[in-house]
Amino acid sequence: MENKRLNEPDYIQELVALIRSNRSAKEIADELGNYHENDIADAMEELNSEDRRKLYQILNDEDISDIFSYLDDASPYLEEIGLEHAADIIQEMDADDAVDLLEEMDDDKRKQLIDLMDKEYQDDIRLISSYKDDQIGSKMTTNYVEIRRNLTVKQAMRSLIAQAEENDNISTIYVCDDDDTYYGAIALKDLIIARDYVDLDSLISQSFPYVRASEEIDECIERLKDYAEDSIPVLDDDDKLIGVITSQEIIEVVDDEMGEDYAKLAGLTAEEDLNEKLSDSMKKRLPWLIALLGLGMVVSTVVGMFESVVSQVALIVCFQSLILDMAGNVGTQSLAVTIRVLMDEKLKTKEKVELIFKEIRIGMANGTLLGVLAFVCIGGYIMIVKGKPLHYAFAISACVGVALLVAMIISSFVGTVIPMFFHKINVDPAVASGPLITTINDLVAVVVYYGLAWILLINIMQVVS
Amino acid sequence: MENKRLNEPDYIQELVALIRSNRSAKEIADELGNYHENDIADAMEELNSEDRRKLYQILNDEDISDIFSYLDDASPYLEEIGLEHAADIIQEMDADDAVDLLEEMDDDKRKQLIDLMDKEYQDDIRLISSYKDDQIGSKMTTNYVEIRRNLTVKQAMRSLIAQAEENDNISTIYVCDDDDTYYGAIALKDLIIARDYVDLDSLISQSFPYVRASEEIDECIERLKDYAEDSIPVLDDDDKLIGVITSQEIIEVVDDEMGEDYAKLAGLTAEEDLNEKLSDSMKKRLPWLIALLGLGMVVSTVVGMFESVVSQVALIVCFQSLILDMAGNVGTQSLAVTIRVLMDEKLKTKEKVELIFKEIRIGMANGTLLGVLAFVCIGGYIMIVKGKPLHYAFAISACVGVALLVAMIISSFVGTVIPMFFHKINVDPAVASGPLITTINDLVAVVVYYGLAWILLINIMQVVS
Repeated sequence: MENKRLNEPDYIQELVALIRSNRSAKEIADELGNYHENDIADAMEELNSEDRRKLYQILNDEDISDIFSYLDDASPYLEEIGLEHAADIIQEMDADDAVDLLEEMDDDKRKQLIDLMDKEYQDDIRLISSYKDDQIGSKMTTNYVEIRRNLTVKQAMRSLIAQAEENDNISTIYVCDDDDTYYGAIALKDLIIARDYVDLDSLISQSFPYVRASEEIDECIERLKDYAEDSIPVLDDDDKLIGVITSQEIIEVVDDEMGEDYAKLAGLTAEEDLNEKLSDSMKKRLPWLIALLGLGMVVSTVVGMFESVVSQVALIVCFQSLILDMAGNVGTQSLAVTIRVLMDEKLKTKEKVELIFKEIRIGMANGTLLGVLAFVCIGGYIMIVKGKPLHYAFAISACVGVALLVAMIISSFVGTVIPMFFHKINVDPAVASGPLITTINDLVAVVVYYGLAWILLINIMQVVS
Repeated sequence: MENKRLNEPDYIQELVALIRSNRSAKEIADELGNYHENDIADAMEELNSEDRRKLYQILNDEDISDIFSYLDDASPYLEEIGLEHAADIIQEMDADDAVDLLEEMDDDKRKQLIDLMDKEYQDDIRLISSYKDDQIGSKMTTNYVEIRRNLTVKQAMRSLIAQAEENDNISTIYVCDDDDTYYGAIALKDLIIARDYVDLDSLISQSFPYVRASEEIDECIERLKDYAEDSIPVLDDDDKLIGVITSQEIIEVVDDEMGEDYAKLAGLTAEEDLNEKLSDSMKKRLPWLIALLGLGMVVSTVVGMFESVVSQVALIVCFQSLILDMAGNVGTQSLAVTIRVLMDEKLKTKEKVELIFKEIRIGMANGTLLGVLAFVCIGGYIMIVKGKPLHYAFAISACVGVALLVAMIISSFVGTVIPMFFHKINVDPAVASGPLITTINDLVAVVVYYGLAWILLINIMQVVS
């Protein structure tokens, strides 16, 4: 053992060997107590169903439920266990984890399991399920310690000890009136170090932050992060304490929300994972693609209006992709920045206007730089590689340069205003903005570029290739 | 007060009014104890410097330091406080927060402040600063409770109470040998409910998970999330316990990492925020844009090779943007999925190959669907809107359809393989893949489309517009 410690430990293999060993049930159970439930959960996937059955007999319901809480999907393992035993295990879980698990099961099985549970636990499950996925109530747990406000320090400590066996989120203790109305919070640390004669009320933060179960997660996630607490109380509309949001739940929500937004920015309707069915993945990607095809036709129609320009100066087509890619990318950059800002902060109108102007200024600065670069490089390129005369070469590269500049300014503007607009009308900007921005940017870029070429090359210089 | 509770509370305004009130210092201090430090930090931004000076006098160093830990940037407020007082306040902070704060200051000031601190605190700061930003050690805090392994339950509780005043991350207590070698962990809950006669060793999880201070954050963040603990111990290479990672730190890291990846996907080199200077924002966006301009020239050169095709059938130019946008988007979708999968999981070669094939299959399925859709719609469009003969219209739309299909398959492949390649050679795939994928996809799409048009329209059908 001592030797092992020096290298990275392989808890999973240790656990598999332990569970398969011939040691007595009690010895194995004691030894398992030294490991983290997450590691035991990982080890379970390496075991065969016979090994796992042994494990279910060795451990008590609470230990099994702790382990099951760490499984991505515990339902296949629950199949290995009789219905009644499964119900007993599930009701040892935090009710929110149980709700997640039950959702994975078919309706019949779920009903049977819930019917086998205690009345009180059924109520918890019903309460959490009653909130929509995007409401805080759906993420809260009923695993918390609640005490009455009129206790002494000693009584409070005793009440905590009585509840701690069942509820292990103890770093903050919540104080309620006799009718469960939320009154405040005590940091466990303060209770532990308090002398017996101290007035409990002096330990209570009466203005401790809280959230409403009915609040949308989007609306309060930033606040929850900012408070940096291990748990934040959740109240119903009558100011009764009905649950808490733990920091573990916040980690999951942050991870999920960001993952969703990341996926949406890339034109997926939701995040995908590795083991997803082909048809599900297709469904998540098709909407954007079909939208893009339709909108692409609009751009094609506009390009079609410049058919005569193209047929006279075919060379200009070369640089269309350059300008469009550039406009598209600038738009995406502005979009990404704007979505993050909209997500993170409550902006006042003044700040929104500032953001728009800032994006335009960045577009202008970068556009000027790249426009000049393109003018010089592309002009030289056409002269040298294509062997065209100087005025012709730089007339074309001037069109490219100016189109780049204009396209980049407009893209910055569009990439900022469109997500703000969708945000305003309560449509998720990450999912709705992409196709529209691409299309508008393409249109602007194409019209400026070919329009300029038409004026400069055909009308003024009367160039025909 | 009772009335206020029914509506959402406005703690900030309550706090501002309280601090500006004429009540005695003691009354204000007592009342402030009811509020969360994060709310007081928010209120500070609403106060003027005179109000704040009053606050600094009313509160003790520890309270001020708790509040300062919640400020995004406390350095301007520290300016309002004398150097010695500021040093006293800083050393009440968790050392990792202090390191973050000190980094914001100029070298001189930082040195002066550090020189004023206790020897022990200086060591903590030096320890945390010695790790690089991407190492776990830079994110750990020395705020944790550590006890010796040979104590009784009662002694352990007493040791906890003695340390809890200073260290408030108490939900897990860490157990070490006499030479600080990490031995295991005890859940505070278990210690609280344990009877005095219980052997402390039976409460200790000896195989509790840990991370190394020298580990890269990327490498262990998934593990840290999975364990869902309020804190995880951090060991140095000699197995000594030197800090812990709290769940609050994990939230920040997850948020940052995702934000970075999100930004990179959009072609920004790092995440931006609202108050950033224009020049900084420009710098974060230019690299991608310049790379794209350079690579765009490559695409332009290739399009240039098809100049004669374009000059003969100018109509085909209309659909170039459609095909390129589509290829680009499919590539981005594959890229986003691949990056998330690479980030979340350790993939075996077999799984990587599976992912590549899956992406190709999705590309093929979606490509076939959209290719057929484009063939029918665009053919009809050219006939009806442009008034061209049927065989001509559908010859062009066939080129579009086939080019779409091929481009989407290749884009799926490229969008999966390129990030895997960069991941393999330890280059961040989110930042490096974008321009390369766009360019390869553009090239493939352009060559397939114009090549096909050249063969079908000019060589076989001998169409000239």
